[in-house]
Amino acid sequence: MTEIQPIDRTRVVRAPNRAVFNRQTVYAILDDGLLCYLSFVADGSPHIIPTLHWREGDSLYIHGLTASRAIHSSSDGSEVCVMVSHLDGLVLARSAFHHSVNYRSVAIYGSPAIVADDRKEAALRAMVERITPGRWAELRPVNDQELKAPTVLELPINEASAKVRTSAPIDDPEDMDWPVWAGNVPFEMVRGVPVPDSAMDPAIKLPEYLRTR
Amino acid sequence: MTEIQPIDRTRVVRAPNRAVFNRQTVYAILDDGLLCYLSFVADGSPHIIPTLHWREGDSLYIHGLTASRAIHSSSDGSEVCVMVSHLDGLVLARSAFHHSVNYRSVAIYGSPAIVADDRKEAALRAMVERITPGRWAELRPVNDQELKAPTVLELPINEASAKVRTSAPIDDPEDMDWPVWAGNVPFEMVRGVPVPDSAMDPAIKLPEYLRTR
Repeated sequence: MTEIQPIDRTRVVRAPNRAVFNRQTVYAILDDGLLCYLSFVADGSPHIIPTLHWREGDSLYIHGLTASRAIHSSSDGSEVCVMVSHLDGLVLARSAFHHSVNYRSVAIYGSPAIVADDRKEAALRAMVERITPGRWAELRPVNDQELKAPTVLELPINEASAKVRTSAPIDDPEDMDWPVWAGNVPFEMVRGVPVPDSAMDPAIKLPEYLRTR
Repeated sequence: MTEIQPIDRTRVVRAPNRAVFNRQTVYAILDDGLLCYLSFVADGSPHIIPTLHWREGDSLYIHGLTASRAIHSSSDGSEVCVMVSHLDGLVLARSAFHHSVNYRSVAIYGSPAIVADDRKEAALRAMVERITPGRWAELRPVNDQELKAPTVLELPINEASAKVRTSAPIDDPEDMDWPVWAGNVPFEMVRGVPVPDSAMDPAIKLPEYLRTR
């Protein structure tokens, strides 16, 4: 896959050695997250909305009811910044100064388009299928009224950059013998045991897509 | 504790029944997260930076090197929106339309101040102590040079609102017998087993603050 060309906005100023413009890395970070943070300007103020995202090819899709309204009714324009990030761990060094965090994050800039009505059902199906493969066909089919409500935003992944830190603590050489525990404390988002709705027929088994991670 | 008064910016338009302005709820959501998302406007564009936050009293503190520079050197002003949110689970309904997410999120608006040099060490100590209580005293002490580098932002929690969803799927009455698994799929951020730095003296034991969650 190609590299994404850095432009001024995505050029990483702080810790540029952690910047990644490789599409494969950027896409893996996006695909590994359920939740994105969408920021936009309305009435001169910055706003953030957390929402669900998914990717198809070189586009990021965003489930964006509230955001769509705010963005497209704003006189400040429809430009957004979308962030997907994973906190992978705390990095505990011998000095406070060298404490850090292991993480993977992607920022994407651009002006999202609203997915047209004739493509909306396919987009929502893709969202459901990415999280729970096979579920769409099991559901009570969507009707026209329901399809009107949600808005889906499509943002081409052109202006994007990733930042990644994965290593052990990096202390000053003279601190290496300081008698304190140093190392990495990993964090992970894990799926717990699914809880069936109390109103559900208990004969319905847990589907395959909820048995594996 | 008092209620936070909604103003136009924090008034929740989408799903207002999920809005919470109670300080106790807002603070619990903030305290339960390590990572916040800080958005600001620079050169007319929205930007997001993920960073660490902590709270003391009615102020949110943000470890904000990159952000501080961007915010305070921007001609767009120093206003920010900070978001802390937790994805607690997926809510799988009988119809695609009623699928949802259980979450807790807080948005705070305001103009952060840069914490003055004479308060910076105490602020950084509070950050370390909140994550790893007792660790600050064990570390190689910070020196003046190191104290200059990081910037800490302080944001008073005046304009803030929380949104919370915690329930089971809410389907249309006529769909309740649709033969599909319905319920909640919990998600949780968990801490893994700490990994000591390979250069550390193996005689150093895992500290108490890393044994419990």
